[in-house]
Amino acid sequence: MTMFVSEALGVNSLGHLTVGGRDAVQLAQSYGTPLYVMDEGQIRRACRLYRRSIDRYYGGRGLVAYASKAFCCKEICRIANEEGLGLDVVSAGELYTAVTAGFPAEKIIFHGNNKTMEELTMALEYGVGRIVVDNITELHLLDQLARAAGSRPGVLLRIKPGVDAHTHDFVRTGQIDSKFGFALETGEAMEAAREAAAAGHLTFLGIHCHIGSQIFDTEPFQHAAQVMVGFLADVKRELGVELGELNLGGGFGIRYTPDNDPAPLDAYMEPVAAAIGAACRRTGMATPFIILEPGRSIVGSAGITLYKIGAIKEIPGIRTYLSVDGGMADNPRYALYQSEYEMLLAGRATAPKTGAYTVAGRCCESGDLLGKEIPLPKPRVGEVLAVLATGAYNYSMASNYNRLPKPAVVMVRDGKARVVVRREPWEDVAAQDM
Amino acid sequence: MTMFVSEALGVNSLGHLTVGGRDAVQLAQSYGTPLYVMDEGQIRRACRLYRRSIDRYYGGRGLVAYASKAFCCKEICRIANEEGLGLDVVSAGELYTAVTAGFPAEKIIFHGNNKTMEELTMALEYGVGRIVVDNITELHLLDQLARAAGSRPGVLLRIKPGVDAHTHDFVRTGQIDSKFGFALETGEAMEAAREAAAAGHLTFLGIHCHIGSQIFDTEPFQHAAQVMVGFLADVKRELGVELGELNLGGGFGIRYTPDNDPAPLDAYMEPVAAAIGAACRRTGMATPFIILEPGRSIVGSAGITLYKIGAIKEIPGIRTYLSVDGGMADNPRYALYQSEYEMLLAGRATAPKTGAYTVAGRCCESGDLLGKEIPLPKPRVGEVLAVLATGAYNYSMASNYNRLPKPAVVMVRDGKARVVVRREPWEDVAAQDM
Repeated sequence: MTMFVSEALGVNSLGHLTVGGRDAVQLAQSYGTPLYVMDEGQIRRACRLYRRSIDRYYGGRGLVAYASKAFCCKEICRIANEEGLGLDVVSAGELYTAVTAGFPAEKIIFHGNNKTMEELTMALEYGVGRIVVDNITELHLLDQLARAAGSRPGVLLRIKPGVDAHTHDFVRTGQIDSKFGFALETGEAMEAAREAAAAGHLTFLGIHCHIGSQIFDTEPFQHAAQVMVGFLADVKRELGVELGELNLGGGFGIRYTPDNDPAPLDAYMEPVAAAIGAACRRTGMATPFIILEPGRSIVGSAGITLYKIGAIKEIPGIRTYLSVDGGMADNPRYALYQSEYEMLLAGRATAPKTGAYTVAGRCCESGDLLGKEIPLPKPRVGEVLAVLATGAYNYSMASNYNRLPKPAVVMVRDGKARVVVRREPWEDVAAQDM
Repeated sequence: MTMFVSEALGVNSLGHLTVGGRDAVQLAQSYGTPLYVMDEGQIRRACRLYRRSIDRYYGGRGLVAYASKAFCCKEICRIANEEGLGLDVVSAGELYTAVTAGFPAEKIIFHGNNKTMEELTMALEYGVGRIVVDNITELHLLDQLARAAGSRPGVLLRIKPGVDAHTHDFVRTGQIDSKFGFALETGEAMEAAREAAAAGHLTFLGIHCHIGSQIFDTEPFQHAAQVMVGFLADVKRELGVELGELNLGGGFGIRYTPDNDPAPLDAYMEPVAAAIGAACRRTGMATPFIILEPGRSIVGSAGITLYKIGAIKEIPGIRTYLSVDGGMADNPRYALYQSEYEMLLAGRATAPKTGAYTVAGRCCESGDLLGKEIPLPKPRVGEVLAVLATGAYNYSMASNYNRLPKPAVVMVRDGKARVVVRREPWEDVAAQDM
């Protein structure tokens, strides 16, 4: 069924939307709204597509690490582990979640442009496999902490390859004007490599880059791979150090609307492997162990959000507002980036979209919208609205604005639904109040 | 001391920034960073300025209701109550917070464009004094719920007065193209008034409007008051109902940067009272009881956020990034609205600002900035950075993005500091995970 942006979705004999085979209207009734629903089958298929593409095109010499910032909870860590993935974390909170979910620390990769001393200490205590060092301050601090701890953590250096990924300004990260990483052009990256190689208490494993987010074609990744292999060769020539790992980050795009046309998940590895191979032959380097860090492309399309329509307000000659029982608190992406989503009425999933509606959230703020001029059938108060492709950067970016509790996350597998993140109790919004 | 945007701030003999008389560097050391700090004295002074201006210019015939969405916790509810204010809430979470803090329900005003049945039921159970009805669906639902509960709640109708408040598109709410309220021009407002007057289980008290946020001059409020009194007169003429309450909402602007020049808090009431008086004389109406709902202007300037500088990254010829240990998770306003803030180094509060720095948050997202090209003295790693005027819409909009816990809120009164919202424990970011 490919009538929607996501393959997780279908329509049953009642004309209701289904997710992972379960009726979305029934899920909304059973678990309440707003509700995040995720298709576990699609998540696992995405994990396998990435793993297989490394097996097929790169001889299996790589690790797919799920970027948990896209959607982090204990259950997704368990799923990633079962699927043989590594895990990318960016804070003590994500690290804590992973470790308490039983995720093996040696397959965790710790990122961030400003890790605190407490976090680096925690990473050493847990035995995190790879720490991606972002800046010189962190390199020195980590070396000192490792000496004190009597350990020798594996480190990668975050490099800005200077590749333009043609994406939203907010999520473009590979260019020189970025808060992340060491610049190649200025010599900063080589200087960092020199220090990393000389550091007495670090195991200098390799380099990392991340060129942006929601990238639809493979070319920027090929380009980044060439640049990064070039830097590995420069490091070998200048420092006599042959680094074995190349982490190319994530940023693989997904379909939010029918207009989006990203490359399939298993289309990246073949040209990127070819680009790495060619660059290695040209520079006389051995092909490195590769790490990919998909986040959005593993969970994004697998998730939807269900809301109840509470009020419909027609403003003649201007627009019609639909108010739902969630909004920017559970999905701030429209407010932040004017992100576009496909939406439908869960109880009439195939009804012709005869009108256009502005979908408003319930927060006391005019900017709390989920979309403008969204095609929908004429809606009725009380119907369930489904917003598609909300599996990434929705729950993870959710706030308690207006003291709204965070919605539950339900996962569906083989037609069986289970809560993986409980709905936050009302009382918990005041849990830290004195 | 008026060297900063906020009167809450000063400088001590060490050259350190002070808040409410306490050394900000010491506060950061004692309570950790990121840290929200608020000057309780300034909050109370703002409450009193509003109350006194109603006493002076409107014969005391009004209520100042603190709009708790700006910053909601139990302690601010207690302070508002002690200062004789009412309280504006917009969700069950804010209502729960207020009631558990001992706030008298009859002085609570319940707003929102999409209150749920559960919330309206809760409001009836608590005996909330005024429910501001946003749409016809809600009017009918509330009448039914009140009948079932055997109560007769006080209601106001939210009206769109069609006044342009010359502010940011996201926070402008009084115009006809808004998700909030009933439009005057289309006859929708009069029809709602007719239904409210006829409803068997509602006490129709008056009308409400809110023309926007961060408004710097009094003219839009005068204009709105005239329009609203005109509607009160129309209702009297058409329906024979004389409504006694006029709620003019909030939206009073504050200084975020030295360029901002809002009217003083006690400057609104005189011209607005004059506008109401003139409109009432013109239309033969008695002057209504008035309600004002300031939020940002009570807490905004009273708060600052303290961060530790973790990394400094100079990109020659482009910019220098300062990374701090917080960011869009505790203050999403730059990411959402490109909001501007004044910043300074808490340990060198009067040092000349010799450079310009881009202040980056710690989230794994390029858009996680707190400001671009911020004037500062040349900073050092480990110094405390203070971002000023963060008392409103910072803690209340905070997320757990990247699974970062929310910072603590410390209030300072007469030189004494106390925690009013505890720092969220690391473990709590996974509290709802199965």
